[in-house]
Amino acid sequence: MPDLDAYLEQHSGRFESELCDLLRIASISADSAHRGDVRRAAQWVADQFRALKLDVELAETAGNPIVLATSAPVPGAPTVLVYGHYDVQPPDPLDQWTSPPFEPTVRGGNLYARGATDDKGQMFTHIKAAEAWIRTAGRLPVQLKFVIEGEEEVGSQNLEPFIAANTERLACDCVVISDNSQFAAGLPAITYGLRGIAYYELRLAGPKQDLHSGTFGGGVANPANALCAMLSALVNERGQVQIPGFYDDVEPLTAREREAFGRLPFDEAEFMRKLEVAALAGEEGFTTLERRWARPTFDISGLTSGYQGEGAKTVLPARATAKFSFRLVPRQDPKKISAALEQRLRALCPPGITLELIDFHGAPGIVVPLDSPYVAAAQRAIEAGFGRVPVFMREGGSIPVVAAFHDLLGVDTLLLGWGLDDDNTHSPNEKFCLADFHRGIKASAHLWHELSQIKKS
Amino acid sequence: MPDLDAYLEQHSGRFESELCDLLRIASISADSAHRGDVRRAAQWVADQFRALKLDVELAETAGNPIVLATSAPVPGAPTVLVYGHYDVQPPDPLDQWTSPPFEPTVRGGNLYARGATDDKGQMFTHIKAAEAWIRTAGRLPVQLKFVIEGEEEVGSQNLEPFIAANTERLACDCVVISDNSQFAAGLPAITYGLRGIAYYELRLAGPKQDLHSGTFGGGVANPANALCAMLSALVNERGQVQIPGFYDDVEPLTAREREAFGRLPFDEAEFMRKLEVAALAGEEGFTTLERRWARPTFDISGLTSGYQGEGAKTVLPARATAKFSFRLVPRQDPKKISAALEQRLRALCPPGITLELIDFHGAPGIVVPLDSPYVAAAQRAIEAGFGRVPVFMREGGSIPVVAAFHDLLGVDTLLLGWGLDDDNTHSPNEKFCLADFHRGIKASAHLWHELSQIKKS
Repeated sequence: MPDLDAYLEQHSGRFESELCDLLRIASISADSAHRGDVRRAAQWVADQFRALKLDVELAETAGNPIVLATSAPVPGAPTVLVYGHYDVQPPDPLDQWTSPPFEPTVRGGNLYARGATDDKGQMFTHIKAAEAWIRTAGRLPVQLKFVIEGEEEVGSQNLEPFIAANTERLACDCVVISDNSQFAAGLPAITYGLRGIAYYELRLAGPKQDLHSGTFGGGVANPANALCAMLSALVNERGQVQIPGFYDDVEPLTAREREAFGRLPFDEAEFMRKLEVAALAGEEGFTTLERRWARPTFDISGLTSGYQGEGAKTVLPARATAKFSFRLVPRQDPKKISAALEQRLRALCPPGITLELIDFHGAPGIVVPLDSPYVAAAQRAIEAGFGRVPVFMREGGSIPVVAAFHDLLGVDTLLLGWGLDDDNTHSPNEKFCLADFHRGIKASAHLWHELSQIKKS
Repeated sequence: MPDLDAYLEQHSGRFESELCDLLRIASISADSAHRGDVRRAAQWVADQFRALKLDVELAETAGNPIVLATSAPVPGAPTVLVYGHYDVQPPDPLDQWTSPPFEPTVRGGNLYARGATDDKGQMFTHIKAAEAWIRTAGRLPVQLKFVIEGEEEVGSQNLEPFIAANTERLACDCVVISDNSQFAAGLPAITYGLRGIAYYELRLAGPKQDLHSGTFGGGVANPANALCAMLSALVNERGQVQIPGFYDDVEPLTAREREAFGRLPFDEAEFMRKLEVAALAGEEGFTTLERRWARPTFDISGLTSGYQGEGAKTVLPARATAKFSFRLVPRQDPKKISAALEQRLRALCPPGITLELIDFHGAPGIVVPLDSPYVAAAQRAIEAGFGRVPVFMREGGSIPVVAAFHDLLGVDTLLLGWGLDDDNTHSPNEKFCLADFHRGIKASAHLWHELSQIKKS
C-alpha cells in the first residue's frame, strides 16, 4: 500500500472546507421548497467525481437524482459499491440551534451543521480516500462504484427501482456504507444489524369545521380525542405493540447475543445524563441496548390538532393528525405490518370519525454475517484509521438500502460508522467530530487496500 | 310604552354599519399581539355610551379594561345589569374563512365576521335598544348598568374581582345577557341552564431535545406517546370521564327535564347533515341534547408535538402539549376537578417524562329558576321582538359570570340568546343573522318596558 498519510495531512484543511461547501446547501428532501437545493447538492457531488476523472452520471428518477460514479475495473480484485446520501433532514426546531443549521461552524473540535454526520460528512470520507489514492498512486486498488442518492431521509422510494433496473452496472462484491455511529467516542465499531422501519401519517376528520366545545362538546365525536385513544391503543403499558401478528416474525434474541450486548461498555447513567432524563423506559424484559437495537418499537414523531397558539381556545377541532413509525427487526415485513395496522386502526376508529392512513415508506431490518473476508478487511482498515480494533454492534436506525442491495445484487454491506451517538442526527445541533472525519478518510483509504487483497477468481 | 318602531326602522342601516365598525377591530384577547386592538374595542364601546350621556368609566384591571356605563336611577322600577363582552376568539384556521374574519361581509342576510354573534353583535342590540328609548322617549324606563368586559374568551379572570370590589355600584335586580342562541331559526328561547368549564394545558417533556427515533426509539420514553396514553386514560369507551370523584356532585337529570328536552323540535339527522358527520357520539345512555346541555364532557382542543411539516421526519420529540377542557354541570366544582385531575395525571405520567399542568380558568355550571316575574317579562318582550313565544332550553357553553352575579350580587340572570347554533362561534365563518340582530334590538327595547312594570317596594 502506498503511503497516503502525507497527502491526507497536507490536504486536511481543504477537505474540511469542501465539506463545509456541501453542508451550506440546504438539501432537505422532505420539503419541496428545497427542491433546487437538493439538485445543487447532487451537482456538487457529481463535480467531485468528475474532478477525479470517474465515469459520472446524474441519473434522473421520479424524484431526486442519483449520483452514479464508477472507476476503472481492477482485474482480480473485488468491486466495491459505496452508498451514501446527499439529502438531509429538516432542521426544525430552528430556535434550538446554537449556530444556523446551514452555516457550518466549528466548536470544540466538532463541525456543527445539518447533515454534518448524516450523511454528507461520512459519505465524503470515501470520496476523499479515493482522491488520496488517485492523486498519490495514480489509481484505485479496487474498482469503486459510488451510488449517492438524494431521498434517504424520505424513504428512498426511487432507489430500489433504480438498483433493480441497473443490476449489471451496479454489480459488485460488497457494499460499504458509512451512515451510522461508532459504539462510543474512541471505540469504533462494525455494525452487523439494522432495524427496519414502517412510517405513517394518520389523518382523522370529524365535523366539517372546528366547533365550539361548549355548544357541541359531548354530542359530536372529537378527532383529537379519537387520535389519542387510537394511538394509545397501539401499545400497552409494558411497551408491547398491540397489533395482531406484529411479533409473529420477530426472532427472539439469542443468549449469546444478549451476552455480547451485555459486555459492551454501555453506561446507562451517562446515557441518561446526556439525554437529561430521570429514567429510561421501554419494552418490559429487555435492556436498553436490546430495546434500541434488536426490538421493534412504536414512536409518535408528530401530533397536530386544533388550537396551538397562546392561551385557551375552547374549540372542538375538525381534524387531528399524527406521524408515527414502527422500528422493525429482521424478518418483520413492513407490508404485512401496514395491512395489520390499517385493519387495527379501522377497528379502533369511532363512529363520526373518518380516517386516512398514509403509508410513507417501509424497509425491513437486517443482520449480516460476521465470518467473511470483507468483515476481516474492514476490521484491519478501521484499526489502521482509528488506532483501535472495532467492536461489533447493532444499530436502531434503518438504512433501507441494505436490504435492497442484499436482495437485488446478492451482496452484503459493511456498515462502518464514523459518527457518535450524540451527534444529534435528525435533531438540532447536528455535529461531526473533525478528528473522526479525518480518521474515517484514513480508514477508508486502508479499506480499499485491504479489500484489494481479497483475491477474485 | 312609546312606539319605538319608527326609530328602529329609520336607523337600522346605521345600526348595522356601526356594528361593522366594531367588528373590524381584531380584539382577540387570547393573543397578546392584539392588546392594542382589545383596548381600541373598549374605547369604541365606551364612546357609544358617552353618546347616550350615560355615566361611563373604562375601569382598568390587571388585564383588559371593563366598560362600565350607568343610566339614571328610576325610582320604583328595577335596576337591570346588562353584561356583554367586546373581546373575540382567535380567528384561525384563517384559510377556512370565505371572507376575512375582520372584514364584515353580508351574504344571504347574514353578517360574517369574528365576533358577529359572540358577542359584539348580540351585546350591541342592548346598546341600540337603550339608544331608541333615549332618543325617542328622552329617558330609559329602568336604570341600566352596562358591564362590557374584554376577557370573556380567556376566562374572565379579572371580572369576578371587579364585581366583588364593586358590589354597591353594580347592585341590581336582575342581569340580562345575550351571548348564546335561540333554540332554532325562528324559535327564540330563554336559556335557564349553562355548563361550567375547566380548561387546561398539559405540557410533557422527555429528553432534552428531539432525538433520532431509530437510534433512541424504544429506549427512551416518548412524550407524544405518553400524551396520547395519558389523555386517552381520562375518558373510557362509553364516554365517561375517568377521574376519581368526577361525577360525585353531578345531579341526575330529572324525568321531567328529560321529557321536556325530548319534546323540543330537535332534528338529529339535520344536525348531522349540517356538521357533515356520519354518526353522533357521546356518553352512553343519554340523548344528544342531554349530552350537549346537561352532561359533563372531556374535549381536547389542541395537540402539538414533534414534526408537523410536510413528509416524514423520524424524530422522537422532546416535548408534547395538549389543550383540553371539561364542561361541567351545576354543582361540579372546577377547583375540586383541578385537584383530582392533577393527581390523576401525575399517577399516569410514565417514568422519564415530566409534566406541567396549566390551569387556565374554571367556572361552575348553573341553572336559574323559571318561576319569576323577570322570566315572565322576558317571555313577553321576546314575543314582541320575534313574534313567537320563546321555549325554555339549556346550553352547553359556559358563561362563567352568571355564577359570579349570583354569588356576589345575589341576582339571577336572564339569558336571552339572539344567535343560532350554526353561527360558527369559535369557528371559521362566524355569522349573525341580520334579521335577528334587529329583532333582538326590538325585544331588548320591549324588555326595558316589561321589566319597568315590575313594581319595586
